[in-house]
Amino acid sequence: MHASPFTLHPQLLKDCFTLGDLELCRVLLMNNRLFPWVILVPRRPSLCEITDLTQKDSLKLMEEMVFVSRAMQTITHAQKMNIAALGNVVPQLHVHIIARFEKDAAWPRPVWGHGSEPYALEEGQTLAGKLQQALALTLTT
Amino acid sequence: MHASPFTLHPQLLKDCFTLGDLELCRVLLMNNRLFPWVILVPRRPSLCEITDLTQKDSLKLMEEMVFVSRAMQTITHAQKMNIAALGNVVPQLHVHIIARFEKDAAWPRPVWGHGSEPYALEEGQTLAGKLQQALALTLTT
Repeated sequence: MHASPFTLHPQLLKDCFTLGDLELCRVLLMNNRLFPWVILVPRRPSLCEITDLTQKDSLKLMEEMVFVSRAMQTITHAQKMNIAALGNVVPQLHVHIIARFEKDAAWPRPVWGHGSEPYALEEGQTLAGKLQQALALTLTT
Repeated sequence: MHASPFTLHPQLLKDCFTLGDLELCRVLLMNNRLFPWVILVPRRPSLCEITDLTQKDSLKLMEEMVFVSRAMQTITHAQKMNIAALGNVVPQLHVHIIARFEKDAAWPRPVWGHGSEPYALEEGQTLAGKLQQALALTLTT
């Protein structure tokens, strides 16, 4: 009699490394070395819009957006953070948190549609490790 | 001895109609008939990032994002909402809340960079009026 459990959309699973879970969100690192790019996915079933969250969860999402954004600013020394919930292609509610630089591949345009380039193994592991440490994440899934 | 007051960035003033003020944010309607597009600007001086908000203001921002997003869904029957804080071009912290449709000019891509087409007078006034009514906004500025 339980609602369907949370499962990650297969496209997100394919495009990202899983870093771990915060209280509300699964934290993913997009496998794209062109932009330091984290994705937060609230671990609730059947969400498409921010308005689908309970009020309590929506406030928790903001807290986690701020927490992750601060960590990325500290780690990457970003010149600007871009934060967005779009979902036109992958319908599962997810929030992009992207560190931007005036010299990055898309500046000043948004990053979507600018292609991707996978991390070299060590490079991806290093950034993933720094983020896991800053966010106190451990992989349990 | 006061901090500098809130003033709207001239680019936002130029591109948008002002609909009124919520508790935290000024509410703007982008003058672009290609997409129903509201912009929320927290009425605090010198903000660039969501992480620049106090914790209390960041939670209020989420409440107002949800409130405005719900109103736009009701008024426009949007198929998807896009919500984003980018700020690569206009540095003042502002949140885009955009109603998207599978038949719109940019679908499924994000709207930025897809040009704009100003509203016909009556068309813009009608949408602005519906939003003001739904959000209980009155113009005091």
